[in-house]
Amino acid sequence: MSRALSKLLSAQGKASVRDLDAIDLHTHVYLPRYMDLLRARSDVPFVRPGVGGERLVILPAEQQQMEQQQNSTTPHSAGISAGRPIGGEYWDAANKIRYMDRHGIRTSVLSLANPWLDFLPLEEQVRQATLLNDDMETLCGDSEGRFLAFGVVPQDSTTAVKEVQRVARDLPHVRGVILSTAGLNGKGLDDPEMIEFYRAIDRAGLTIFLHPHYGVGNEHYGKYGHALFLALGFTFETTVAVSQLVLSGLLDQVPDTLRLLLAHSGGTLPFLAGRLDSCVEHDAATAQKLRHAPSVYLRRFYYDAVAYHEPALQCLIDFVGLDKIVFGTDHPFFPPAKDGEKEVSEGEDLSELDWRSTLSNYEIMANMSKEVQSAILRDNAKRLMGI
Amino acid sequence: MSRALSKLLSAQGKASVRDLDAIDLHTHVYLPRYMDLLRARSDVPFVRPGVGGERLVILPAEQQQMEQQQNSTTPHSAGISAGRPIGGEYWDAANKIRYMDRHGIRTSVLSLANPWLDFLPLEEQVRQATLLNDDMETLCGDSEGRFLAFGVVPQDSTTAVKEVQRVARDLPHVRGVILSTAGLNGKGLDDPEMIEFYRAIDRAGLTIFLHPHYGVGNEHYGKYGHALFLALGFTFETTVAVSQLVLSGLLDQVPDTLRLLLAHSGGTLPFLAGRLDSCVEHDAATAQKLRHAPSVYLRRFYYDAVAYHEPALQCLIDFVGLDKIVFGTDHPFFPPAKDGEKEVSEGEDLSELDWRSTLSNYEIMANMSKEVQSAILRDNAKRLMGI
Repeated sequence: MSRALSKLLSAQGKASVRDLDAIDLHTHVYLPRYMDLLRARSDVPFVRPGVGGERLVILPAEQQQMEQQQNSTTPHSAGISAGRPIGGEYWDAANKIRYMDRHGIRTSVLSLANPWLDFLPLEEQVRQATLLNDDMETLCGDSEGRFLAFGVVPQDSTTAVKEVQRVARDLPHVRGVILSTAGLNGKGLDDPEMIEFYRAIDRAGLTIFLHPHYGVGNEHYGKYGHALFLALGFTFETTVAVSQLVLSGLLDQVPDTLRLLLAHSGGTLPFLAGRLDSCVEHDAATAQKLRHAPSVYLRRFYYDAVAYHEPALQCLIDFVGLDKIVFGTDHPFFPPAKDGEKEVSEGEDLSELDWRSTLSNYEIMANMSKEVQSAILRDNAKRLMGI
Repeated sequence: MSRALSKLLSAQGKASVRDLDAIDLHTHVYLPRYMDLLRARSDVPFVRPGVGGERLVILPAEQQQMEQQQNSTTPHSAGISAGRPIGGEYWDAANKIRYMDRHGIRTSVLSLANPWLDFLPLEEQVRQATLLNDDMETLCGDSEGRFLAFGVVPQDSTTAVKEVQRVARDLPHVRGVILSTAGLNGKGLDDPEMIEFYRAIDRAGLTIFLHPHYGVGNEHYGKYGHALFLALGFTFETTVAVSQLVLSGLLDQVPDTLRLLLAHSGGTLPFLAGRLDSCVEHDAATAQKLRHAPSVYLRRFYYDAVAYHEPALQCLIDFVGLDKIVFGTDHPFFPPAKDGEKEVSEGEDLSELDWRSTLSNYEIMANMSKEVQSAILRDNAKRLMGI
């Protein structure tokens, strides 16, 4: 066990990671119904047999890689190696519970992973959103308190508002919805047609979990696998989408109680907020459209602690304050790999391994006070999710 | 005076901002020779008469704005209003000194502002680099210790190395070179042909000041003036270019004493360094090309304190350590505007006004110890620049 982890456990008065009693607000699942949908597809996103079992191809960069393989003359006897190996950790509730038990997570607030329903025709999105949200409710209801969920909405402001109302009325375990940076209608979070959706979310007391998928700056990442796409493309995407929302002035037309949870510690916003304020202040035409400086709006939002190093988490705390930050793991992405092996072998149960990516998001709290740790690990999440 | 500024002055034992004795490593000048070059041009970048005096058009976003004006039927009797008004604060050394005196800056390490020589044919770049560096040496030599400089190099690895050697040998006031993220040859900082340049810089004991110009994610910023281009496009650009350099493995072939100073507090790198480490660690093909985790390389670099809010500066300190951070102002960009006025009037001497953008980069140090403040305000810069 790392020194940081020992220190965290000691501060929390816990004997082992298994006892940490954390609540995870950033944890994904591909529901079985969604897996079937992906398995039936031949365009991205899809799942198909490949090297080391089934492979999931969801990112633009993965699609490029796959096309290169298909055009190459090198034989791939075991099928595609683009995308990533995908096993029970992606869809199996029992696997998720084993992972949670091993890593001290009492409750997971599950969300469908990207790209959600964005690739489907609208009518099918409406149908699947209903079915998937009902599936999610059943899964959570049967979990003896281990699961809550963010639902999905179709990418259309009218039907999305209806689904938000249905979720609030009929699905008590679904406490919010996950949303892509494309927003509804695919025109971004600053599309004026989003206003009614924001108001409906606020009225319902639900939370929007904003999550990237498309990337920003993708033309620069190709040479370096997916590392830069995930490290920079994702975080830039969240930063851009939320900045557009803030600068649009739409938030002046929506209650300031709107609950918006930003993935990956807000991308880069906690770091750039001061520069954003300064650039807006020096651009009179933009500034005069807003009631407040951008950072005032940004401080209303919630942020997960998926930051991977202490300087970033501390920056987030300094910026937004202690009561807006919730623990997250990004499970089942960033899985463990055995030393010296590129990938785990087919059919291996990853829930029996230590997830370094999860542990590192515990470790970054080690030097903070017990109060800070407890707020992030569980107290804020209980308040936000009504647990 | 703001409370933060009073607190900083009190901690520093100074009666007023004028006494702060700071060294500014991020401060630009368009040398008169460069101004003539810009005035003679009709394509971006250029300077021409416009609304409120001369106007400088250098950014891709400004070019778009100008083209829209030219295509519009609205008459612009006083000329273009694209770009920004430009006065003596951009080229007049006496103006810079007055600004420095008013804002407590003892020494400015001047650099040509973007886009440097990137737009010229290579042969002309070589000629102008020599002339401009000689001009800079004369300007600094005549300044009674108030100016040092970063020079410029042509965008070509062979001639750039020669100019670095000449600067080191013949121009004692030029202590480094400013470099765009395009690097030499326009192929980025991770172009293997850059290696000899990095080695030459290191051998000469000079510093590279890396500065953005082109932007990343520009397709998303148009609706919001230049605010997002400057706040996000610039910082993403630095982040991408330096990440590419790090992931290329080139730094394993260059002495670890190479001095690289990153503009705007490293873009977003101090915040994202942990995520970058994690994404590389989970991408075996990328990780195995590197001797260290990305953050190890990033911690070798220097960063300016042009961060505009305390959480970002604290993040930078937590990440890179106290001895790698130097004060900067970004003067003459982000100029003051009188209340209620969009822009200052023609011919106004901005050096007689308080620059809010400068003061805010003092204020963010207010809650830090005197040692931290002094390190950033002047001590680190003395060591790095050999003052």
